Amino acid sequence: MLPPMTSPANPRLDDMLSTRARIGWGASLPPARPVADALFEFGAGHPDPGSFPYEGMVEATADVMKAEGAPALSYGEPLGYKGLRELVSHKYRLFENLEVSPDNVIVANGSGHALSLAFSAFVDVGDAILSEAPTFSGTLATIRRHGARVLDVPMDDEGMVTDVAREQLEKLRREGTRCKLIYTIVNFQNPAGPTMSRRRREELVALAHEYDTLILEDDAYGELRFEGKQHPSLYALDKGGRTIRAGTLSKILGAGVRLGWLCASKEMIPVFQGFLFGGGVNPYVSRVATFFMRENLVPHVARLTEIYHAKRDAMLKGLWEVLESTDVEISKPEGGFFIWIKLPTGTSTTKLRETAVKHGIQYTAGPAFFINGGGEEFIRLAYSWETPERNYEGAKLLAQAIEDAR
Amino acid sequence: MLPPMTSPANPRLDDMLSTRARIGWGASLPPARPVADALFEFGAGHPDPGSFPYEGMVEATADVMKAEGAPALSYGEPLGYKGLRELVSHKYRLFENLEVSPDNVIVANGSGHALSLAFSAFVDVGDAILSEAPTFSGTLATIRRHGARVLDVPMDDEGMVTDVAREQLEKLRREGTRCKLIYTIVNFQNPAGPTMSRRRREELVALAHEYDTLILEDDAYGELRFEGKQHPSLYALDKGGRTIRAGTLSKILGAGVRLGWLCASKEMIPVFQGFLFGGGVNPYVSRVATFFMRENLVPHVARLTEIYHAKRDAMLKGLWEVLESTDVEISKPEGGFFIWIKLPTGTSTTKLRETAVKHGIQYTAGPAFFINGGGEEFIRLAYSWETPERNYEGAKLLAQAIEDAR
Repeated sequence: MLPPMTSPANPRLDDMLSTRARIGWGASLPPARPVADALFEFGAGHPDPGSFPYEGMVEATADVMKAEGAPALSYGEPLGYKGLRELVSHKYRLFENLEVSPDNVIVANGSGHALSLAFSAFVDVGDAILSEAPTFSGTLATIRRHGARVLDVPMDDEGMVTDVAREQLEKLRREGTRCKLIYTIVNFQNPAGPTMSRRRREELVALAHEYDTLILEDDAYGELRFEGKQHPSLYALDKGGRTIRAGTLSKILGAGVRLGWLCASKEMIPVFQGFLFGGGVNPYVSRVATFFMRENLVPHVARLTEIYHAKRDAMLKGLWEVLESTDVEISKPEGGFFIWIKLPTGTSTTKLRETAVKHGIQYTAGPAFFINGGGEEFIRLAYSWETPERNYEGAKLLAQAIEDAR
Repeated sequence: MLPPMTSPANPRLDDMLSTRARIGWGASLPPARPVADALFEFGAGHPDPGSFPYEGMVEATADVMKAEGAPALSYGEPLGYKGLRELVSHKYRLFENLEVSPDNVIVANGSGHALSLAFSAFVDVGDAILSEAPTFSGTLATIRRHGARVLDVPMDDEGMVTDVAREQLEKLRREGTRCKLIYTIVNFQNPAGPTMSRRRREELVALAHEYDTLILEDDAYGELRFEGKQHPSLYALDKGGRTIRAGTLSKILGAGVRLGWLCASKEMIPVFQGFLFGGGVNPYVSRVATFFMRENLVPHVARLTEIYHAKRDAMLKGLWEVLESTDVEISKPEGGFFIWIKLPTGTSTTKLRETAVKHGIQYTAGPAFFINGGGEEFIRLAYSWETPERNYEGAKLLAQAIEDAR
């Protein structure tokens, strides 16, 4: 399950490392980038730089300094800036008609950090969890670091296949092992794309109760929906407080602010807070971001949704124009940043990579998203960073490279 | 060694928690504050709000947006913003004539978070470490959370008594237990005040080598020296790469920016990086802080040093005017934020607390700084937040309360 253990360069340190530092040693280093200076950055899920509110952040800073300068530059509240937790609460009410108290929210240094709080709180080295396969490579690094054993659950058009989730839970029960949590990305799953259907959501919540486990619901992109029906979150459906939900400002404001959060039952919040070490998370940038978003949330998100919609369509157009006649499978997510491609039968991924490097096209190879191996026949493209024109152009080039790699 | 385990409010979660979540459950909640609305805030080490660069941060934000807007709002570098790591390197060269490469620096969300990376990397539940007793209560919360067993080492005027450190290391060696690290605050020790002498520094580094252990050198206040000789850091004295040094912008810029770091051998840096979960730490505020500090580092620190010097003297004056004739012991730190008081013989701490609450005086009772018990006869005062006039006034009031509590 875990990657092979290798040694740090300094051998004297070798036997000094903690158990978690040994496990997955090197695994959380940044993934090797296929191209140093990409001409087409389709690799990571970087938000669109053209839509960043540069002026707005300067104005918000000036406003913060006038209104809350001293607290902005002082230690913060243990659960994070109250104003930001109120903004999160407001956002859920506005976008999902969901009532969440600010006291159910704890702020973290981005949603990756937020997810790590949940793993730290519930997962010991060797503990079992369930996850969709494929799933987000960044979370897999966190899961590795915590030493979790992951049981894979596949997806179809309705998202996580709950029948297989049940089989996996049953298997663990027979072993006498408790599943500590089920990790899932419900909307525009990263990387595979499906949005979990209402029926599956209800089944998953029921499973968590039946097997006395928790759900970790990762929803970094939910606001950026281009089409399709929005379903209630697992957090909203779960009346029993077993669902922990992670969110972020990264995709609707800018990843550089590093502001994410967990939503959970009030009983759980202090458990997560125990893994925040000192000073309160980001009191300064929390205020700047909150002051900006308070004034701009709805129009800013509407603008972003339009932008990413156009970017997705441009990339899909470029891909299909070239690959139409092949047996390629290309996801069409209802929102978010990513397209997932099952390469045509017989594609040589080595050849594809070589041509992509030559053209300066950066993408992420499938295996990064499978903790238990596999995924060679997939690649993930991010359409979020480049312009629609560049997405179209790069997608055509890449599609041609796929054609040529068969 | 560890505090008694109590249960989370929701009993169903009880057996779901990780080992580290169980240990010290509740211990990292914010310390109970003696006064809800303090008239005299002598409790926590809050930097002086009058010296925050409110305008400077707005200007720096505008400059960042012009020069590096897109990266400021995007995911960051794995070790933290290069410009900030260069600033740290520059600061050490300028203030200490110490050469540290930016590649020996990893940025964290404040120095508390930085310290937690070192504990995560090296300390498993049950592992042994050495620490000065008393030591900073915030770090003790982190130590508890990691489940470390702490062996106390006392201090005298020269800082940590290395002879006792050797005895503790010897005791562990006889047990067959390895000391994972020695945690020390070398300058204006928090809370007790002494600065470690050159001789002791050399002895401590030699001990780390002799007993094949590491040193975690916490230096949050080193730049704020009012008087006395600056000694080379343990990091500078240690030619064998066994010392990890933590620093922060909290005290020389503002704690709200949450920017701290570890300095360590290049072999160790990826180990720490393995405990940063996703996205790079604070790329936005790192740039704003760096742009401000690049232009203002030396004059800003000089101004702060003057400010805290005057604040310390005002508090000392108030205390001694009233307590002169008692057997009180009052530290006179060469820098930093804190005064440590050994109360006069026979002082009732209950009575003292009652009077302090009545006057709205907030301080921290000694036991918060002792993980293995004790410290009832001590209190710590922070002179950093209030003005010199308020420090003088509040110190006199508190000294009178001490007098009256005998």
